[in-house]
Amino acid sequence: MKKNLKKVNAAILVIGNEILSGRTQDLNVSFISKWLNEKNGISVNEVRVIPDVEKIIINSANELRKKFNYVFTTGGIGPTHDDITAKSISKVFKVKYEYHPEAYDILKKYYGQNNFNDGRKKMSKMPRGSNLIYNPSSAAPGFKIRNIFCLPGVPLILKSMIHNCTKYLKKGSKTYSDSINLITVESNISKQLELIQKKYKKDIDIGSYPFFRLGRVGVSIVLRSQKKHKITLCKKDILNNIVKKKKIKRV
Amino acid sequence: MKKNLKKVNAAILVIGNEILSGRTQDLNVSFISKWLNEKNGISVNEVRVIPDVEKIIINSANELRKKFNYVFTTGGIGPTHDDITAKSISKVFKVKYEYHPEAYDILKKYYGQNNFNDGRKKMSKMPRGSNLIYNPSSAAPGFKIRNIFCLPGVPLILKSMIHNCTKYLKKGSKTYSDSINLITVESNISKQLELIQKKYKKDIDIGSYPFFRLGRVGVSIVLRSQKKHKITLCKKDILNNIVKKKKIKRV
Repeated sequence: MKKNLKKVNAAILVIGNEILSGRTQDLNVSFISKWLNEKNGISVNEVRVIPDVEKIIINSANELRKKFNYVFTTGGIGPTHDDITAKSISKVFKVKYEYHPEAYDILKKYYGQNNFNDGRKKMSKMPRGSNLIYNPSSAAPGFKIRNIFCLPGVPLILKSMIHNCTKYLKKGSKTYSDSINLITVESNISKQLELIQKKYKKDIDIGSYPFFRLGRVGVSIVLRSQKKHKITLCKKDILNNIVKKKKIKRV
Repeated sequence: MKKNLKKVNAAILVIGNEILSGRTQDLNVSFISKWLNEKNGISVNEVRVIPDVEKIIINSANELRKKFNYVFTTGGIGPTHDDITAKSISKVFKVKYEYHPEAYDILKKYYGQNNFNDGRKKMSKMPRGSNLIYNPSSAAPGFKIRNIFCLPGVPLILKSMIHNCTKYLKKGSKTYSDSINLITVESNISKQLELIQKKYKKDIDIGSYPFFRLGRVGVSIVLRSQKKHKITLCKKDILNNIVKKKKIKRV
């Protein structure tokens, strides 16, 4: 019996001068990408990092939402003047940028009537028609409109709320992976590996990544496929036809 | 006397399934971006991460090289089948993908005649007309053709060779930055900060970034400008009109 494989993909749009300037090391891309694949079978096919500039946000979001099933943005949904993601995404869909009644209530309750200032109120402004992505760590919700999901930039907060995106996502087939770590150099195995990649062209992506750890030089061969049994087959092939034949040490 | 400010910009194109899948944490973007700004006055205005797919590499490189002064690619210049950057960049400029005589000699000498196999030879294939970017750690050079610079993905190797790009770059005006770290929350200062941003709109980008460290919640206000003296002025303004007035503690 053949299983139907469903390909669902996404892009991540990182909005923030601090990432572009190198001041802040992005940690969200790798987290979101793994979460999407492992929990939802969705593969991330493109990432862009762009500055806090309305026109660039609008154009990039527009381009990516047409190319991929989903777009996840990070950053720019806080209370300060440089937080312009929600306003920009409103313009993407040409809808009003306004207080979301439920988000407004959540924040009013969280801060208390007397401390609910304009900056805090701003965090409840979003594109009309948005669904909330609840935030258990610091109350201010993210939002989802059509196929765009807007999340905060702070990794701890993002991590605490990402599971609240699940209900809006259609699931795809998970991409499985396995790896073989060898004490060798890439150029020692590249020819044989290419032949095996050709053999499994249809089903498997074979990646080869040099590593340098504790004074050792090695290669990590990574197999990725939506078909788990093909990975098992391909791994055997590599072990028998490259590793054993060339007497390469595994780690 | 007015100093002429020169804006020179760049994009970084990260080529690699391993970054997209979340398996590998990218560390090159932040390094390249800081190096370009600090040593060359070049600001990175966009980053893209894309898979090892020829058509996507060609299209992305083409789009970015037209939008920015320079494009720096990372990844995909090794000896294995998934290293297709050099071949793809040849197609961007519609030039031959062939052995670069000097690169060939460097690698032949490095590996020795008897160990100079096809995988190793492949690392000297690049677009016709490329200039070499020498690699003091593992010999295999990167290359530069027109406004595209191709560097390896391994951070240690990339770091060891990036200074060899300098001679090909025209310099711009450095972007200076300074920051003020406060024990407060963003929504406590967002209104006043916006007023100050408006005042210095022409010259300064003010960013506001929450931080969570050792159980403390704080905000980092980052000022960025090509005019150093404007940063000094703006910083004073923030200290007098926000920090002092609101009696906020600095760290």
